[in-house]
Amino acid sequence: MFTTVEETNTRTTAAHAAYEQARDIDPGTRAAWLRGIAAALEANADELVALGQEETHLDEGRLSFELKRSVFQLRLFAEEVVRGEHLDATIDHADPTWGMGPRPDIRRVSVPLGVVGVFGASNFPFAFSVMGGDSASALAAGCAVVHKIHEGHLQLALRTGAIVEEALESVGAPQGLFSTIIGRAAAECLVDHPLVKAIGFTGSTAGGRALFDRAARRSTPIPFYGELGSINPVFVTEAAWKLRRDEILAGFASSFTMGMGQFCTKPGLLFVPGYSSALTGNGDDVSDILNREVAGKPRRPLLSPRLREGFDRAVETVRAAPGVDVLLAGDDSEAPHPTILKTTADHVRKHPGILEQEMFGPAAVVVEYHPGDDLVSLAGLMVGQLTGTVHAEPHEDVSDLLSTLRERCGRLLWNAWPTGVTVSYAQHHGGPYPATTATTTSVGTAAIARFMRAVAYDSFPPSQLPAPLRDDNPWRIRRRVDGAWDSPIPEGKVSE
Amino acid sequence: MFTTVEETNTRTTAAHAAYEQARDIDPGTRAAWLRGIAAALEANADELVALGQEETHLDEGRLSFELKRSVFQLRLFAEEVVRGEHLDATIDHADPTWGMGPRPDIRRVSVPLGVVGVFGASNFPFAFSVMGGDSASALAAGCAVVHKIHEGHLQLALRTGAIVEEALESVGAPQGLFSTIIGRAAAECLVDHPLVKAIGFTGSTAGGRALFDRAARRSTPIPFYGELGSINPVFVTEAAWKLRRDEILAGFASSFTMGMGQFCTKPGLLFVPGYSSALTGNGDDVSDILNREVAGKPRRPLLSPRLREGFDRAVETVRAAPGVDVLLAGDDSEAPHPTILKTTADHVRKHPGILEQEMFGPAAVVVEYHPGDDLVSLAGLMVGQLTGTVHAEPHEDVSDLLSTLRERCGRLLWNAWPTGVTVSYAQHHGGPYPATTATTTSVGTAAIARFMRAVAYDSFPPSQLPAPLRDDNPWRIRRRVDGAWDSPIPEGKVSE
Repeated sequence: MFTTVEETNTRTTAAHAAYEQARDIDPGTRAAWLRGIAAALEANADELVALGQEETHLDEGRLSFELKRSVFQLRLFAEEVVRGEHLDATIDHADPTWGMGPRPDIRRVSVPLGVVGVFGASNFPFAFSVMGGDSASALAAGCAVVHKIHEGHLQLALRTGAIVEEALESVGAPQGLFSTIIGRAAAECLVDHPLVKAIGFTGSTAGGRALFDRAARRSTPIPFYGELGSINPVFVTEAAWKLRRDEILAGFASSFTMGMGQFCTKPGLLFVPGYSSALTGNGDDVSDILNREVAGKPRRPLLSPRLREGFDRAVETVRAAPGVDVLLAGDDSEAPHPTILKTTADHVRKHPGILEQEMFGPAAVVVEYHPGDDLVSLAGLMVGQLTGTVHAEPHEDVSDLLSTLRERCGRLLWNAWPTGVTVSYAQHHGGPYPATTATTTSVGTAAIARFMRAVAYDSFPPSQLPAPLRDDNPWRIRRRVDGAWDSPIPEGKVSE
Repeated sequence: MFTTVEETNTRTTAAHAAYEQARDIDPGTRAAWLRGIAAALEANADELVALGQEETHLDEGRLSFELKRSVFQLRLFAEEVVRGEHLDATIDHADPTWGMGPRPDIRRVSVPLGVVGVFGASNFPFAFSVMGGDSASALAAGCAVVHKIHEGHLQLALRTGAIVEEALESVGAPQGLFSTIIGRAAAECLVDHPLVKAIGFTGSTAGGRALFDRAARRSTPIPFYGELGSINPVFVTEAAWKLRRDEILAGFASSFTMGMGQFCTKPGLLFVPGYSSALTGNGDDVSDILNREVAGKPRRPLLSPRLREGFDRAVETVRAAPGVDVLLAGDDSEAPHPTILKTTADHVRKHPGILEQEMFGPAAVVVEYHPGDDLVSLAGLMVGQLTGTVHAEPHEDVSDLLSTLRERCGRLLWNAWPTGVTVSYAQHHGGPYPATTATTTSVGTAAIARFMRAVAYDSFPPSQLPAPLRDDNPWRIRRRVDGAWDSPIPEGKVSE
């Protein structure tokens, strides 16, 4: 079953050859390849979703939505390829009056990096797996992809890979542009391979850091775009708590249990004012409300026995920390009841390690702070996160809290919940280490640029310039020319 | 003289405090800070240039030009800050009809990383030193800078640092936003410091790689933007050689001896058709021409005795390689005569190490290829470079050669010479490892983005959004809104 090192070398070499054939293809053709993959996934949706159900314990509705999201992403990226935004085309005409001395004609465009190794995640068998965000953005960038299959959904991954390869062949893409490998030896070979120019990874902090280190140790180091762990703290102000306590608790219960808590954006920490105080303002206490909200959520087994073991261990670690109590007990059943732990601001100040232990699954910690307590200093205890959320009233000045969270988080939310990451132009799914190993995003159109690098063309005659840099702009892309932006893309260009 | 670890910690902490005060300042104020530094450098130009002459052996004209370039760069970056291009502001309004399901309001903006450590280079005491490209781009990004002084021009660096600090104080920037440190222990402390979020480095491959490894090994790894070594090959086609041999040799002689060859863009390799053959087409032979051209160039001592030792050693290493002969002999004088070595394509194919040894100083290798030889495969022997140059005729199809060079180089030149790097919007001064440790540029306005990361604001009410993301666009910057670009910047905005 495992791909041998020899076979991994063969696929990587084939990927590089395909990349060389494909790197300068026109945007319309590349977009057609992405759309070809999208159509093939869509055409095989029933089979793929059924395979996913067998291997992941995720339900049909969730898997269907995730597949739809992945298909949408491919089509959005196809549009972006045609728009040419990712090319960052910039033209400075020769200028004898340039302030530092005469300037030659110099033009810049972004080009693909080459072969990209992509590691699939277990928790999104479509959206962060074989043809998830990393693969889609690498192909959109013009790279070839060798995908390391996550064995948690092996059959689904193999079938998805086969469908992608067939689709690419049927639309005329070069053979080898996309392939898959299985197993640790193959994975290590991929990270070490001289023809591999970047890695995209979604997974655990430990596994991701080991591969990051490996990529950095190469004689020729390569960028490692790793999305690792995140606890996603939520801060509730006293004013918001007073006005919307029940609504906030209901939202929290929905968000941290969604997908059985197996999201990297699961809100794992909820900071609330001391809830035994008069602030609560009504009869039900917090544990009653959470109990009621959580009781109604569907329960399913976690993705894999190994993941379940890790989850149980993580919950036990946090529960055993000084000053941590159980607010809502989980259980040992195959489809576990969610766990909510509780502690206080005083305790996390003394033991900030509580704030660093991700519990990947249906568990979270409620942290009580004293009325008047300093939320900014509490936020300052957090390490890098994918998201940070504030529940507050519109008139409140929480700018210091937001600034402190901004230093630590890739996405800030206001009176909302971090689960659910839309794929769009403005999305940023990233954050300081250990949330990720880079300053980039793995979701949204901005993810494409990770797999490109810029090249400047200095003093080239028009006949020798690549298409996106020619004065006649044959690809009709938007470009910065002599510091200003040229006219926008003609209407209807991307609407085909 | 050396900064202690304790003092380095103090300056880094002060830099972080200054960064926190400065990070959200309006663009006009930040631009004024950059312009204040520019004006102060300009006002002290005579003193600084004189100090530079004493410490570097570089002549007044060169140093004056380099200072002018650094001042220009600060003003160009100030304009860019006001334009807001580096903010990459992107707005996706909430959209219930979005293809993958309803989209919340989500907006992205780039924010500064924090404190940046900058290592100065010896060979550009202004342009890549205290207030060179790395410092200017980090300050433009909104970061604070702790600059590690290059001891090759210690007095100049100290004086420049003092002028910069005074200038920043006089324009009201927070104290500590810029400071300098000296010595190896301080440098290592800087790279390891938890408050340091990125490193900018220009220097040797060995030194740069050691610091890159150090930055990657941190418990929280940080980006290391290192510009290391480059040989900058030049490929001359048979047609160009036939028509323009003497002009090409003259250009080569000027370029590789410019600044006594102490440029990272020095053309260190010239691939030409076998020059003993009929191709040369006239009486003078190549060594006569080069001898004549080189004889007229000014000669000066190299930057430092240590650099000179390294240069002599590197030349000796290449000279000792199999099949390498001397075309033009250097000498032992304090201001050395340039060295030109020669070898053949057959030899570099057998011993490609010849193509990887940078000789930092006035030396280069001429590589003869056989008429009809495959330039593409020769180019394929090169490792990552800052530049790659082709001398060819406009009608020639050299697309395969350009593609092969593009894989390996950050800037391609056509019938031009790589020395001289203009600071502009389209410039890219970078390239695959070992030319640099990143995919970014250290010259030009695009360098600013290295010291920023994106943050998304999800579901925020208008009153809580940062200025660049508000619908009323108070900073009047260009933004992408719902996938399209909003109207261009009002005329005259940046011309103040």
